Amino acid sequence: MTEYAIGVDLGGTNLRAAAIDRAGKFVDKISGSTDLAAGRDAVIGDIVESINALGGRLGMEGLKGVGIGVPGFIELEKGMIVGSHNLPGFDNFPVRDDIARRLGRPVILENDANAAALGEFWMGAGKDVNDLVLLTLGTGIGGGIIAGGKILHGFVGMAGELGHLTVVPNGNPCGCGNRGCLEKHASATAVETMAKLVALGDDLSAKDVFDLAENGNKLARRVFESMGEALGIALASLVNVFNYPLYLLSGGVLPAWDHFAPAMFAQVEARSFTYRNTKTRIERAVLGNEAGLYGAAYLPFQMD
Amino acid sequence: MTEYAIGVDLGGTNLRAAAIDRAGKFVDKISGSTDLAAGRDAVIGDIVESINALGGRLGMEGLKGVGIGVPGFIELEKGMIVGSHNLPGFDNFPVRDDIARRLGRPVILENDANAAALGEFWMGAGKDVNDLVLLTLGTGIGGGIIAGGKILHGFVGMAGELGHLTVVPNGNPCGCGNRGCLEKHASATAVETMAKLVALGDDLSAKDVFDLAENGNKLARRVFESMGEALGIALASLVNVFNYPLYLLSGGVLPAWDHFAPAMFAQVEARSFTYRNTKTRIERAVLGNEAGLYGAAYLPFQMD
Repeated sequence: MTEYAIGVDLGGTNLRAAAIDRAGKFVDKISGSTDLAAGRDAVIGDIVESINALGGRLGMEGLKGVGIGVPGFIELEKGMIVGSHNLPGFDNFPVRDDIARRLGRPVILENDANAAALGEFWMGAGKDVNDLVLLTLGTGIGGGIIAGGKILHGFVGMAGELGHLTVVPNGNPCGCGNRGCLEKHASATAVETMAKLVALGDDLSAKDVFDLAENGNKLARRVFESMGEALGIALASLVNVFNYPLYLLSGGVLPAWDHFAPAMFAQVEARSFTYRNTKTRIERAVLGNEAGLYGAAYLPFQMD
Repeated sequence: MTEYAIGVDLGGTNLRAAAIDRAGKFVDKISGSTDLAAGRDAVIGDIVESINALGGRLGMEGLKGVGIGVPGFIELEKGMIVGSHNLPGFDNFPVRDDIARRLGRPVILENDANAAALGEFWMGAGKDVNDLVLLTLGTGIGGGIIAGGKILHGFVGMAGELGHLTVVPNGNPCGCGNRGCLEKHASATAVETMAKLVALGDDLSAKDVFDLAENGNKLARRVFESMGEALGIALASLVNVFNYPLYLLSGGVLPAWDHFAPAMFAQVEARSFTYRNTKTRIERAVLGNEAGLYGAAYLPFQMD
């Protein structure tokens, strides 16, 4: 009998589940889309169905446990998502307990970026350290902090909301109520907004802006420089706060590394005495979209 | 025989040492000044003499250990201070081992703000929590982070340099190489600089500006509002990073609380979703100057 855990990654677009064994090997996987239009109950039904399908294929007796990564601020004790803009209908709903009830077994709920950070720690770019910080650069920006091999939760479960670090005090407004949040200046959405502001085009995707930058378009390159500067301001502060050995970046904007990283490193170098005087590494994460699945699946193994 | 530990607080102005027992009771204390003009060797001699004097009075057989809080970035493994502007001559000198050699016993070196945070955790405003962040508002701004009852060190020992969080990306230049560091916008020095900028007077101390604010001077009050805003930006980010239950402020500028706190809380409220949705406390520390002595003395007790 193979012992395995199931990790679920619930996003605003995709719903994925994977069965992973204790050695970090993917045993089985299910990928689908998150049918938000069908409503919360249907989405939760799809989650439960995915878990049961994997369990059915592999045998429930080998299932160590289930971890689920979801976007948004998490209240750990209540097992609820609060303030998730990507999952309308899930706000303040006891999603963990509802899934557990339908599944007939306990599940562990976790913020998706926290899960991704744990995944990189377990099987990715952070395998050789005990402490790291991960920033996920996607539609928004998530953050996960691994302290001594465990996710830093804080007293409610909301620690690591690094997309909402203030990098420009009077910067772009954010849905969280703040202005100048990192994610309003360095996410894919921010790249698209900046492209519009410099009149590159009204409906360009971050990928379009990337292609333009690749082809030498100076405005597109300036957009990624701005993104890099915002990231660098945030990373310098995080280096000064944690003095951790490793800071990782992941997410859909990562392919633009060559366009944003020079400006990012210049800011960190200028702004952090600690960075200049220690062997702090700022690197690309390596597990891509799988990081969240690894991390979610590792949660039950970590309970031992 | 009373078991006690000796905590030393080495500042740019004052050198103090206290013998404290395991219950947190001050058994004996020595206060003097830091004679920087006499040079590093003389200062270290004074430290060793203070420790020996306390030990002689109380009996060396009861001495559990010695902890020493010093300003500046610390390299823990080497026991060195790096980048301390307040202690010229101590930079890159193996101060811990030199003291230990002269004393004939090991000592624990720690950043002064880290020691103060540990002191507040042990015997002050943080007695009821396991995790807290302390900002010390003095000539500069120091920071200390207590995670699970222990000082967060990072991999070199430089964690918690919260005075060097960027709060104004293009703000005042800082000796650390950055611009817009918290301590350049919210320390006593920043208050004095701002008083000059608004033409309140060229040589006003932070205390003078405080007295003017108390007497209703609007420009003086505006200075403390600016200070509070800078603090609020930093605190909002720290709340978003850690989601800890308690954030403490201490130091010489604390009496101006009524003048800076309203602007500070307004910023935190506006900028942190987590603050608005949790019972996060931002409060005044209670141990004053003694916090660093408590924390330094607690270091050897914590080794058990």
